[in-house]
Amino acid sequence: MQTDEESQELERASISLAEGMHFVGEVDGFQIDLDAKEEVGGRGTGADPLHLLLLGLTGCTGMDVISILRKKRQQVSDLTVEVQGSRVDGHPKIYGYIEVLYRVWGKGIDPKAVERSIELSKTRYCPAMAMLGETAQITTRYEIEEEA
Amino acid sequence: MQTDEESQELERASISLAEGMHFVGEVDGFQIDLDAKEEVGGRGTGADPLHLLLLGLTGCTGMDVISILRKKRQQVSDLTVEVQGSRVDGHPKIYGYIEVLYRVWGKGIDPKAVERSIELSKTRYCPAMAMLGETAQITTRYEIEEEA
Repeated sequence: MQTDEESQELERASISLAEGMHFVGEVDGFQIDLDAKEEVGGRGTGADPLHLLLLGLTGCTGMDVISILRKKRQQVSDLTVEVQGSRVDGHPKIYGYIEVLYRVWGKGIDPKAVERSIELSKTRYCPAMAMLGETAQITTRYEIEEEA
Repeated sequence: MQTDEESQELERASISLAEGMHFVGEVDGFQIDLDAKEEVGGRGTGADPLHLLLLGLTGCTGMDVISILRKKRQQVSDLTVEVQGSRVDGHPKIYGYIEVLYRVWGKGIDPKAVERSIELSKTRYCPAMAMLGETAQITTRYEIEEEA
């Protein structure tokens, strides 16, 4: 959920070659190493670039969901989001299927609030959902863990 | 450029809430912190999730380009890839425009080789290009820096 001013700004990311297939990435002032796995000529010294799309998706929708649950006054003590993606055959090997699992910990969490927050993220707020959902079938599910 | 076996595997990323809008992400065994900026309720202690899509794009196409240039026996001493994205108005605030700048350092680099490597990445190999290109207009340009 972004402000209107922010949408007008240019947003940036960059990489610089280190060695082999290892690139040093920079985003928002943070350094993130990227590398290919050994079977495709890398050394695994950093994240697979495509997996950053999945990680971006978890963060984007996770921030939506925690924001909405807090606005709905749900007492959330923890939230995890796990994404699994599988690629299509052929080139380019885009994700054809992505499954998103939300796990919400707290006391007396209302399942309807969780469902609604996920729905709002998926259909209205999360740009990563919208962008990756153009090519991938994205399914969502959730689990609520009642705290003692 | 992935192997066929890899395309059949499930690929994973996950996040776990730390505090506020700060999530600790995990991908390929690496920890990457995610946070919203202060103006949208975060504290900026990690990367913006959407910017990870841009970073994934730089890495994906950067690995393609360096691989292809090496196959074409180009003497590349350094390669950077910089991406700038701008969002659309309205929700969801997807990237409507993405510009990718490749800078290639080396001796006697053939511009045609650079052009072809970028074209192959964009049209055939890079899944991030294909996925984000469904919603964003992606333009590419390059600069060659001749080394002394």
